Amino acid sequence: ARDSFSAYNSKYLTVPQNRTSWHRSGTNGALEIINNYVEGTQTRARDKASPSGLYFRDSKRKVDYVLAYHYRKRLARHVPGAASPEPRRGFASVALVSNGSTGKGHAEPHPLDTLEEERRLQREEYERNLLEAGLEIEKDPENKSQGVSFVRIHAPWQVLSREAELLKIKMPTKKMYEITEEKGILKTLNEIWCKLTEPLQPQVPQQENTKMKTLSYPFSREKIYFFSEKCFPQPETLCGSLLTLNIVSYTALSPLECYEMKSVIMFSVKSCLFTTCIFLFLLGIGTLIANNVYDAAYPLHDVCMHYEKIQSSLLYQEWARYGVFYKFQPIDLIRKYFGEKIGLYFAWLGLYTEFLIPSSVVGIIVFLYGCLTIESDIPSKEMCDQRNAFTMCPLCDKFCDYWNLSSACATARASHLFDNPATVFFSIFMALWATMFLEQWKRLQMRLSYFWDLTGLEEEEEHPRPEYETKLLQKKLKNKNITTECSNEVRCTLSFNLCGICAELIHLLICLQIMLAFSAVFGVIVYRITTAAALSFSTNETTRSNVRVTVTATAVIINLVVVLILDEIYGAVAKWLTEIEIPKTEKTFEERLILKAFLLKFVNSYASIFYVAFFKGRFVGRPGHYVYVFEGYRMEECAPGGCLMELCIQLSIIMLGKQLIQNNLFEIGIPYLKKLFRKLKDERTEVKEMDTNQSKDPQQWDLDYILEPFTGLTPEYMEMIIQFGFVTLFVASFPLAPVFALLNNIIEVRLDAKKFVTELRRPDTVREKDIGIWYNILSGIGKLSVIINAFVIAVTSDFIPRLMYQYAYSQNGTMHGFINHTLSYFNVSQLKAGTQPENSLFAQEVSFCRFKDYREPPWSPHQYEFSKQYWAVLSARLAFVILFQNLVMFLSVLVDWMIPDIPKDISEQIKKEKTVLVDFFLKEEHEKLKLIESFIAHDKQKHRSGTKSRRTRAASFSQSCAFLCLLHGVILSLE
Amino acid sequence: ARDSFSAYNSKYLTVPQNRTSWHRSGTNGALEIINNYVEGTQTRARDKASPSGLYFRDSKRKVDYVLAYHYRKRLARHVPGAASPEPRRGFASVALVSNGSTGKGHAEPHPLDTLEEERRLQREEYERNLLEAGLEIEKDPENKSQGVSFVRIHAPWQVLSREAELLKIKMPTKKMYEITEEKGILKTLNEIWCKLTEPLQPQVPQQENTKMKTLSYPFSREKIYFFSEKCFPQPETLCGSLLTLNIVSYTALSPLECYEMKSVIMFSVKSCLFTTCIFLFLLGIGTLIANNVYDAAYPLHDVCMHYEKIQSSLLYQEWARYGVFYKFQPIDLIRKYFGEKIGLYFAWLGLYTEFLIPSSVVGIIVFLYGCLTIESDIPSKEMCDQRNAFTMCPLCDKFCDYWNLSSACATARASHLFDNPATVFFSIFMALWATMFLEQWKRLQMRLSYFWDLTGLEEEEEHPRPEYETKLLQKKLKNKNITTECSNEVRCTLSFNLCGICAELIHLLICLQIMLAFSAVFGVIVYRITTAAALSFSTNETTRSNVRVTVTATAVIINLVVVLILDEIYGAVAKWLTEIEIPKTEKTFEERLILKAFLLKFVNSYASIFYVAFFKGRFVGRPGHYVYVFEGYRMEECAPGGCLMELCIQLSIIMLGKQLIQNNLFEIGIPYLKKLFRKLKDERTEVKEMDTNQSKDPQQWDLDYILEPFTGLTPEYMEMIIQFGFVTLFVASFPLAPVFALLNNIIEVRLDAKKFVTELRRPDTVREKDIGIWYNILSGIGKLSVIINAFVIAVTSDFIPRLMYQYAYSQNGTMHGFINHTLSYFNVSQLKAGTQPENSLFAQEVSFCRFKDYREPPWSPHQYEFSKQYWAVLSARLAFVILFQNLVMFLSVLVDWMIPDIPKDISEQIKKEKTVLVDFFLKEEHEKLKLIESFIAHDKQKHRSGTKSRRTRAASFSQSCAFLCLLHGVILSLE
Repeated sequence: ARDSFSAYNSKYLTVPQNRTSWHRSGTNGALEIINNYVEGTQTRARDKASPSGLYFRDSKRKVDYVLAYHYRKRLARHVPGAASPEPRRGFASVALVSNGSTGKGHAEPHPLDTLEEERRLQREEYERNLLEAGLEIEKDPENKSQGVSFVRIHAPWQVLSREAELLKIKMPTKKMYEITEEKGILKTLNEIWCKLTEPLQPQVPQQENTKMKTLSYPFSREKIYFFSEKCFPQPETLCGSLLTLNIVSYTALSPLECYEMKSVIMFSVKSCLFTTCIFLFLLGIGTLIANNVYDAAYPLHDVCMHYEKIQSSLLYQEWARYGVFYKFQPIDLIRKYFGEKIGLYFAWLGLYTEFLIPSSVVGIIVFLYGCLTIESDIPSKEMCDQRNAFTMCPLCDKFCDYWNLSSACATARASHLFDNPATVFFSIFMALWATMFLEQWKRLQMRLSYFWDLTGLEEEEEHPRPEYETKLLQKKLKNKNITTECSNEVRCTLSFNLCGICAELIHLLICLQIMLAFSAVFGVIVYRITTAAALSFSTNETTRSNVRVTVTATAVIINLVVVLILDEIYGAVAKWLTEIEIPKTEKTFEERLILKAFLLKFVNSYASIFYVAFFKGRFVGRPGHYVYVFEGYRMEECAPGGCLMELCIQLSIIMLGKQLIQNNLFEIGIPYLKKLFRKLKDERTEVKEMDTNQSKDPQQWDLDYILEPFTGLTPEYMEMIIQFGFVTLFVASFPLAPVFALLNNIIEVRLDAKKFVTELRRPDTVREKDIGIWYNILSGIGKLSVIINAFVIAVTSDFIPRLMYQYAYSQNGTMHGFINHTLSYFNVSQLKAGTQPENSLFAQEVSFCRFKDYREPPWSPHQYEFSKQYWAVLSARLAFVILFQNLVMFLSVLVDWMIPDIPKDISEQIKKEKTVLVDFFLKEEHEKLKLIESFIAHDKQKHRSGTKSRRTRAASFSQSCAFLCLLHGVILSLE
Repeated sequence: ARDSFSAYNSKYLTVPQNRTSWHRSGTNGALEIINNYVEGTQTRARDKASPSGLYFRDSKRKVDYVLAYHYRKRLARHVPGAASPEPRRGFASVALVSNGSTGKGHAEPHPLDTLEEERRLQREEYERNLLEAGLEIEKDPENKSQGVSFVRIHAPWQVLSREAELLKIKMPTKKMYEITEEKGILKTLNEIWCKLTEPLQPQVPQQENTKMKTLSYPFSREKIYFFSEKCFPQPETLCGSLLTLNIVSYTALSPLECYEMKSVIMFSVKSCLFTTCIFLFLLGIGTLIANNVYDAAYPLHDVCMHYEKIQSSLLYQEWARYGVFYKFQPIDLIRKYFGEKIGLYFAWLGLYTEFLIPSSVVGIIVFLYGCLTIESDIPSKEMCDQRNAFTMCPLCDKFCDYWNLSSACATARASHLFDNPATVFFSIFMALWATMFLEQWKRLQMRLSYFWDLTGLEEEEEHPRPEYETKLLQKKLKNKNITTECSNEVRCTLSFNLCGICAELIHLLICLQIMLAFSAVFGVIVYRITTAAALSFSTNETTRSNVRVTVTATAVIINLVVVLILDEIYGAVAKWLTEIEIPKTEKTFEERLILKAFLLKFVNSYASIFYVAFFKGRFVGRPGHYVYVFEGYRMEECAPGGCLMELCIQLSIIMLGKQLIQNNLFEIGIPYLKKLFRKLKDERTEVKEMDTNQSKDPQQWDLDYILEPFTGLTPEYMEMIIQFGFVTLFVASFPLAPVFALLNNIIEVRLDAKKFVTELRRPDTVREKDIGIWYNILSGIGKLSVIINAFVIAVTSDFIPRLMYQYAYSQNGTMHGFINHTLSYFNVSQLKAGTQPENSLFAQEVSFCRFKDYREPPWSPHQYEFSKQYWAVLSARLAFVILFQNLVMFLSVLVDWMIPDIPKDISEQIKKEKTVLVDFFLKEEHEKLKLIESFIAHDKQKHRSGTKSRRTRAASFSQSCAFLCLLHGVILSLE
């Protein structure tokens, strides 16, 4: 590691500071350097009228990054009025230097002051390192007793180019090439599609020529003549104004490509700041923030975040408002403003929402099919038929009476809505839909990474998390006296200790949490059983008749509340557990956090649904031999219409409730309240400070500082993934799930967009090629959904028994007599003493009551044993599971195999790009050959003319350099 | 496409020919250039004593590639003695020019001559292009009337370096870095493992320092000072001698790395030759060979392929002989000699063979468990017990008698060997084993691609197949008169036509072929049914008693023969079908061919086994209601011990037969016969030509020309993959399969090795990162095996009925009475007229006979319907399938997830490499800074001293160039 330190030191020492940027724009090489230099100066001068707050005081250098911190001067203690810390102050820019820094320094040092002093030293050291790394810094004088101060950082051209080279960032070259278009019918179809969707397209200024793509190549300063000149003349002025995504300035300056460099490198700058610190002091900016040395670190929003100004910005107009809910998202714009990672999230969300449209349509059709066939459904007709007097066994001991099956007519009819053959089709459809969605996502991801020049992007080197390094440092310091072994050893020991102690603890805690979720479900079950029993004791007739409805409704609501509360708890627990683990890098941290959070939230959301689908009503026993829990409470049964109905209710309420409350109420309401609160507070503060501050317009960094910090995409993804689970896992029981998901997502997209544009500090751009672990989770859910749907159809629904009846047991091949077939007989005289209904109101004398099961009748030698039908139906159910699972899995594999991961046009394009690149290189090499000849001639001439003035010589020297550099590849091949 | 032509033209024009190679070895830059140049010349002179046949006539330039062709002079017609074409001539090098090329040219042109002339022109044009591309060529004079002539190609340094740069081939740099070793226990374990396996390691000279790895970086001529000097001084002399894999010369010249460049670039040379032609004439070397313009194109073997010499080569000693069968393979050596693709095949084969060892051990243990428990197995005891007089229903109509179950005692006992609970464990084990194997392969692949510097290797640009281009050209020429549209259009039309007509045809043909395989299986079934019936008519007592054995044995052998014949046919059919399709690139050709061949061979190998496992004996019907086929033939039943026994026999015979006959007999015997034949023929020819040829020692190219051409790895992989299927798919029925596979593979490895070293022309080295589509096929087989094993255990074996009996039906929880439970009763009086046994020898009067099924007894109201037990057992079987499938799949996913694809040490190494690379670059940049200062001083001095002699000026100029080039990155960042 020590070698790395010195290497990093030397890295930054090689780049001298405070030089004017190198500047080049002509195609004819070094001869134009001087001309262009003059031009460049003019460009600068032109740019004085740039938006306030985005530039250094010279109005030339752009603010690329801001560090904010709170300062407190020692003398502050003597000003009693401003003692309480006020973290959210408006701004603290260049104001009157009323309190000089040479104030009353004679007060004795206070512990808080020592801490403050230490932080100041740390800041100074850190900023010195930034300067050494070649960055440029602007600070405001700390002219108040305490307040927020901003360190504004500008990354000049040489830093950007150096980082771009090290990170092998692809940059546009001079070369453009044509994108091959489809021919024939495909082209026509494509054109028609474009025409049709034109009103849905966001109105974003396109590149002038969409049929051409600029060839990109990993940036290299040595091959600088390859690259498009658009990016070189003073990127901070030309590209800077591009960042203002205001329509007017945007369309005026068309070439978007040069922005790419700036955007893409912002991450690298953060990483470079980070790296510097890590290697020099084992402390990153993250640690500095964690230690309150700094408050915040963020790049600036490029639109003024005042509410009045933002509305005119392109991103807001075309993306972040509800009015454009029907439009596609301007993904390229999002990516340019927020970086690839966030761009990918919105692209994914968009694709998911689009994919929900067909599934919603099919879901509605399936539901309508259920509605339309309800009248012709023989089993529900038979059930409702008063003439079929099926006397059912009592639903509870002693207090419940025998009842007539036709009284459950309503539930039977409702049940048919979701329990019909179309549902089977729909769940196969949805399993394939999930596969198709994942495949299409892979293709879209590939397409985006091609157009965003991410192909061939290698994984970034991973930096250890500051927390990890701190821990390591502590451990190291502690161990220093004991042992002098290398840091690697320490790292080993540390992680070994962590493994040993924490891993066990963490597994235990996760198990405990999962137990908690299960026990919550169990609690609700107990609530249901006891309430149902209690209500049935009631003498009130209306109470008793509505037992089932009351119990189900209250239980589901309790369930929902528990889910919502546990969700919040689990989010915190997962984070805490992952922090205990101290994973080495940010990436492992994120992955582990996601896995833990997903596991916990998944269990939490679905446990009650799993219970209803697969366990409820399966351990009831039979009349005369019921299963009792807690001394005397019978296990709960499903409604006579089947458990599928209850599953549907459970699923729909939890899904809708979660979406409405968690996504919309929490996401809209809470930020609104926060804003309101902050506004009120600000107003009060402002009144107080009005006199001390000759306030200018607030600067951009002040405005951004007020915003919430960006905390990652995990909650956004998590929300959608849990929803994806609702849409796919139990779709057999609730075909309308995609519809509700679609409605939610249309709002969600704009809600998230608004949040990102107006309520959060601008996030650091992160380059990423894919959505990482989320893809695996999605594909896991997809696979699980096949098995679960197979079981729901086979076990929970009545699909298989109906099929069996129709084709095996029915006399005439119709469903007539199905209800009778599914009901077994029970001899009432065999009811245990004390469990008979007390005050039976039933008219006729009941000798046999019926119950829903396949059991031998009382007159059979094997009384009440499972009948042959039971086993036959069970076989059929299981066979269906095997068939369904393997068929759907096979189809999924087939779909996966049939749809290539890389779209054909993109793969052809990539191949073409390679060929064009080789050609381009060879052409350049050819040109070099010509140049060398002209240079040799030039060189001879120069030598002949003898010595010149010092200035001319320097110019000719730099010319030679540039020329020679161009030629040197050729020289090597010539020798 | 026209642009590309000119670009490619200009590409080759930029590299002037016939220059001496640029040469550099010092670390201190350009100052040493001249010194080294002198050194280089000395090195050349030293190398005169190089092995004959590997060099041009100057004994300096190495022969990198050879093109062979047949020539026939026009005057040949007038020499009657040599009229018959003799394709396998010994050699035709510099001999007496007895027949001058200015011979009797007055003969009228013959059609054959015109063709010959055309070919000669094509050759001339092609060779001119090779020269233009910078390659160097040596030819022998065509001094005989007809014969084989060789074009020997040498790729000089500038071509190699240009290609390396274009292909971004990673080359060793000057920088070495330490490989992090394991610490603590792991290290000790590793050392113990190394000690233990030392006798198993091949004795190959290692790099001097195995703890260091050279840092590699994509080669660039501009950054040439980065790269290890080992490779630059005259690679053709230094590295050339390395290629002679003779131990003596090998150990004398230790640095292996420089070989890497040579080896790796050979492919690119081929591809470059290829590309040139493709773009210039739409004709590649492949097409030229197809058109008989050339006979063959191959690189040279680097050991003299005479049998006496080869034995002393390292590859032969340590790899390609049976004596070292117990050793690991020298994979690095294989890769260096044959390239990455073949290296990966042998690495894969080695890993597979190693993985077969544990599964063989477990298989043997499972088998032994069966053997040991055979005495304590109650069902087979009961079956053999003479006292349990189960009178079974006759096995055929009329001619068969009732029989006693105890007569089938032997098969019952044999059946237990494979049908016991250990088998269930073994099939779970094998499913996980397959997953583990695939995971480990992924890891090994990653490790190899790290050590072979293939990480970050992009996919090569794909060249269209010559056949495709020819077809295109034909089409184009045909269409030229009709339309003048662009070639793209034509390509579209062509492929469109092909799609329309051929795709349908091909699908039809594949279906037909699969039908053929099924009909073969069906034919064997019919044979079995009829023969069994015919034999049972026989009056001979011994014939009748051995019916089953006779029929099974003959049927399986017929099956085997059919499989072997169809295998050969299918190989040819798959190739033919793929050629009809005219896939665009070699890669798609290979993939489609593999898929087709695999599909056909898979169906062929396993159809009969599938039949026995899942269909045989399931459609027999029941006594009194048998299923008849072909008027009067009853469907065949399984033996009383269960179908598993028959499955086992079928499987073992087909597997062993296929391995013995196809792999060993065909692979050893046929080449031997061919060799013998060739030898005999050669001897005859040689005697004839002795007088005309003053024969020197045959050159290497002559010797290689005699060898068989290399035709790809597909058959080798296919053989192993089909074997992998035998090992995993039905492992539940034949636990010894891995043992036999292991024995076969131990031979197979050395057999293949021998073939590659001694019997084939040296293949072009192909760079590949993975085994491609084979991995997908393997993983597909792995997944299929889970389902098939689940069904074999549940449906074919008696495992589930036994379990059900023991835990549900048995009175006392033991297996006593199981046989009785599985046999149903049949009332003999209900046998249809004419189907009763004619001359029953059975002592007592039979009123009920028994048959193996779960059916209601004759005295039940639902006579002979499936009983409740039947449905219960069926449910259990299906439940087992679901449980087994999902459990094993879950475990596989878990194993997949737990074992990271990239070994931890390798991923750390890769990260470290990146850091080291960045450091290295930064250090170089720092050094540049120092150099620029010294240069400026130097430059001033030079100007002061005024003009010098022309020679010195040129030297100083080249110095300046080199310096300036080194500095120019710094210059840019300085300005």
